[in-house]
Amino acid sequence: MNKRYSLNEYIEIINNYLDSSIGECTFGEDIVHNAMKYSLSIGGKRIRPVLVLEFCRICGGNIEDALPFAAAIEMIHTYSLIHDDLPCMDDDDMRRGMPSCHKKYGEEYALLAGDGLLTRAFGIVAESEMAKKSPEKAVEAIRLLSSLAGVNGMIGGQVVDLRNEDKPCGLDVLQTMDSLKTGALIKCSALLGVVVAGGTKEQKDAAISYAENLGHAFQIVDDILDVIGDEKELGKPIGSDAESNKSTYVSILGIEQSQKYADELTDKAIASLDIFADEADFLKKLALSLVKRKN
Amino acid sequence: MNKRYSLNEYIEIINNYLDSSIGECTFGEDIVHNAMKYSLSIGGKRIRPVLVLEFCRICGGNIEDALPFAAAIEMIHTYSLIHDDLPCMDDDDMRRGMPSCHKKYGEEYALLAGDGLLTRAFGIVAESEMAKKSPEKAVEAIRLLSSLAGVNGMIGGQVVDLRNEDKPCGLDVLQTMDSLKTGALIKCSALLGVVVAGGTKEQKDAAISYAENLGHAFQIVDDILDVIGDEKELGKPIGSDAESNKSTYVSILGIEQSQKYADELTDKAIASLDIFADEADFLKKLALSLVKRKN
Repeated sequence: MNKRYSLNEYIEIINNYLDSSIGECTFGEDIVHNAMKYSLSIGGKRIRPVLVLEFCRICGGNIEDALPFAAAIEMIHTYSLIHDDLPCMDDDDMRRGMPSCHKKYGEEYALLAGDGLLTRAFGIVAESEMAKKSPEKAVEAIRLLSSLAGVNGMIGGQVVDLRNEDKPCGLDVLQTMDSLKTGALIKCSALLGVVVAGGTKEQKDAAISYAENLGHAFQIVDDILDVIGDEKELGKPIGSDAESNKSTYVSILGIEQSQKYADELTDKAIASLDIFADEADFLKKLALSLVKRKN
Repeated sequence: MNKRYSLNEYIEIINNYLDSSIGECTFGEDIVHNAMKYSLSIGGKRIRPVLVLEFCRICGGNIEDALPFAAAIEMIHTYSLIHDDLPCMDDDDMRRGMPSCHKKYGEEYALLAGDGLLTRAFGIVAESEMAKKSPEKAVEAIRLLSSLAGVNGMIGGQVVDLRNEDKPCGLDVLQTMDSLKTGALIKCSALLGVVVAGGTKEQKDAAISYAENLGHAFQIVDDILDVIGDEKELGKPIGSDAESNKSTYVSILGIEQSQKYADELTDKAIASLDIFADEADFLKKLALSLVKRKN
């Protein structure tokens, strides 16, 4: 099996790669290039690109091959945050304890920076070494990225979110919203890793099950932290969900049931990885750390 | 050689294809799907997709194969117009004589509709029959789309435009701006056609030269029409450039010189197509009609 990496090693590899992934401005006005680099650099846990790299590794692939695909998913995640923070959406001034992109660069440049990241995400995959060696893998990755980040995926989740703003909704709507808004990209990340490695159908199914359960648990923990979290550790104010009258897992199930639900989903996620035996240690630990996280 | 099509036949083929290109909403809240379809349906001249299909045809390709690529470029063009019309950009209430996307659906849904079209553009190429038969062609097309629509292409042109808003600029800045803002996608369209057909280097060079000169002439005529055009035929108010104190070809060169310049560029565009002999008749006629257009 391939060399194993720690979470910190992965994050360093990803950050180094992202740093150079935008390229230079070729015509003199580099404000949008800078806005893109800024938003990429204040990235948080890098869960999505880590999933790409580790699923590639445990399916027998080379993480060097997977890096452009990992960068693509982080670019798409970052563009969605930039557009989500805009005044016509959530109107957030802060993101991960730093000024949001439009607060720092202006709304028009933040809009274009988001567009630029989304556009570049597909380019970095199409320009990759893997796209030369195995273009059919790049095509499959782009099909997944477009479908899971698109209007029946992540964007669809934002639509459901907007349509249910400021009014309570049921558990079914909440689960649809989360499975699209957060879940789709997490599933995409795991699948991209398997695709780059040329994994089997069985490995794909395991990746999907792990990612779906993990994504779901992740969102429940997010809701819990919005009630009982520490503002300093979170880097954002708590209590915003209750204030906006928004339904959450906590408002529907209560804290205790929500925590139990998140634990059950995490157990399911971990059990999905049995086919990988002890090669799945990293991903099992990752799932446990996400459900127990403080930010 | 392949069957020839008239401009109207092409437009009908493209409109029919675009109609079904977005697909159905799978989760119930179809407002963004509808916003995407609305903006695609009020499309104008369809120059970009027509270029894809006709360059494919004259390079010996099948226009059926080129349709998803033609749709992709029209989706990218349409997303750029939706985002360009937003209040934080040009703040335009009307587009081609109809309410702009955000006027009809609201700013937040227009933002997401633009994101959705950009995302879908890459997906429709990756899902195409050509991507199955010749994935390397789909990869090359996606590389071109990402690069020419990205921050060193079309988005870059919008940056130059914003940086020079409300202040006069020189001819060099104007040409950089136009070659990026309008020229990049027109060049991309011609190249996509050649790529789908598997055209030669010589055919690619001819396509680039035609498209660059045509795109440049097109923009000059746009500036002329903003001064001497008929509001009814244009579907938008004239005089907006002069009002905003923006430099244009007309403000720098005057009407007569601008018209002469556009004619020269059109002649160059037409001359680029000599290698295609009389198969290039359609594209030559198209160039002449665009430089003589009234809207």
